[in-house]
Amino acid sequence: MTITITAFERSPDGGKGLARDTRVRWALEEVGQVYQVRLVSFRAMKEPAHLALHPFGQIPTYEEGDLVLFETGAIVFHIAERHAGLLPVEANARARAVSWMFAALNTVEPPILELGTARLLEGDKPWTRQRLPLVEERIRIRLSQLSTRLGDADWLDAAFSAGDLMMVSVLLRLRSSGILDEFPKLAAYVARGEARPAYKRAFDAQLAVNTGKPLTG
Amino acid sequence: MTITITAFERSPDGGKGLARDTRVRWALEEVGQVYQVRLVSFRAMKEPAHLALHPFGQIPTYEEGDLVLFETGAIVFHIAERHAGLLPVEANARARAVSWMFAALNTVEPPILELGTARLLEGDKPWTRQRLPLVEERIRIRLSQLSTRLGDADWLDAAFSAGDLMMVSVLLRLRSSGILDEFPKLAAYVARGEARPAYKRAFDAQLAVNTGKPLTG
Repeated sequence: MTITITAFERSPDGGKGLARDTRVRWALEEVGQVYQVRLVSFRAMKEPAHLALHPFGQIPTYEEGDLVLFETGAIVFHIAERHAGLLPVEANARARAVSWMFAALNTVEPPILELGTARLLEGDKPWTRQRLPLVEERIRIRLSQLSTRLGDADWLDAAFSAGDLMMVSVLLRLRSSGILDEFPKLAAYVARGEARPAYKRAFDAQLAVNTGKPLTG
Repeated sequence: MTITITAFERSPDGGKGLARDTRVRWALEEVGQVYQVRLVSFRAMKEPAHLALHPFGQIPTYEEGDLVLFETGAIVFHIAERHAGLLPVEANARARAVSWMFAALNTVEPPILELGTARLLEGDKPWTRQRLPLVEERIRIRLSQLSTRLGDADWLDAAFSAGDLMMVSVLLRLRSSGILDEFPKLAAYVARGEARPAYKRAFDAQLAVNTGKPLTG
């Protein structure tokens, strides 16, 4: 069955790979599944046809036969569950990899989202300059804990998994802030993720869209 | 095998059921699994023994034989996957229920967490009174979208699932703000969740801990 995902017609990051379709593209590349991409404009994202697929009017969505999914974590998990390569076979190791997916999205990403919100939506507010260091400090607490747990390992729990895919994707959002580089072990961890051939293919595919030269994914 | 979870020795909410162990207790009650609770003090949560279970020094954790899990979403998913009652059997419906779990934790909860942070960690800052309406408005956008999708249905996707358990739990955090009551369909949805016998048992168990009368869960 054909897999179709949605992505921004033009990503707000101009092709830096930070839009969430990159996470889904990466997962599909890791497990070797071909996919099609339907590009959606900002206006179309808020219209009924797209809201029927994604109640919060965002990208990506995932269509495969009768199945329609939204929410990146769920899409990546669905891909990881149905194809070998992103989750360990052993039950306990698999449950731990799922823990890291949720930790990336519900513990590490929220303070990072807050930084994005502070800059993008409150960048012109009189308090933002004073407030940003507090937001950044909350991110540092999480990153310090994560770095301690990772230690000198390559990945969070033995082999690369969907948990690492999600954590690396979340941490990539921090690179432009300089905060990631304060944690050399995490910066090296993110670099290992980016060095994976599947990541590179995913990145190049979204870049092609955003530089006006769409590829078939 | 015995299931042991961790919870606050004394919850910051004083027993309102908003600490995340309530979500795990609720899931265990829904599937009829008995469990033990180990209470952890704020100090002990940041010490090596607990950090070995939970790298971010939080509760709950989940221990079952050799398996150690952290992160509420992952724990609830693990319970839902292994016991009947929280996920549909049909594969596509099951994937959609998982979508709602991730949507609760990564799309709806982050702005709600931001409101909590604004009040608890920035409550004394000069900007907070002016800033709170902006944070609240971002929550309203999500709740409006969620309410539209829910419509007049009892649950988010046909039968009650782990997705509803998580969404109701996330929305409960908003009750004291008054924002939830601006969306009558969502307020009724949350009330349906709270009316479930399994929720009541979970709530009562955490309340007993926080009022100094520990029960065995």
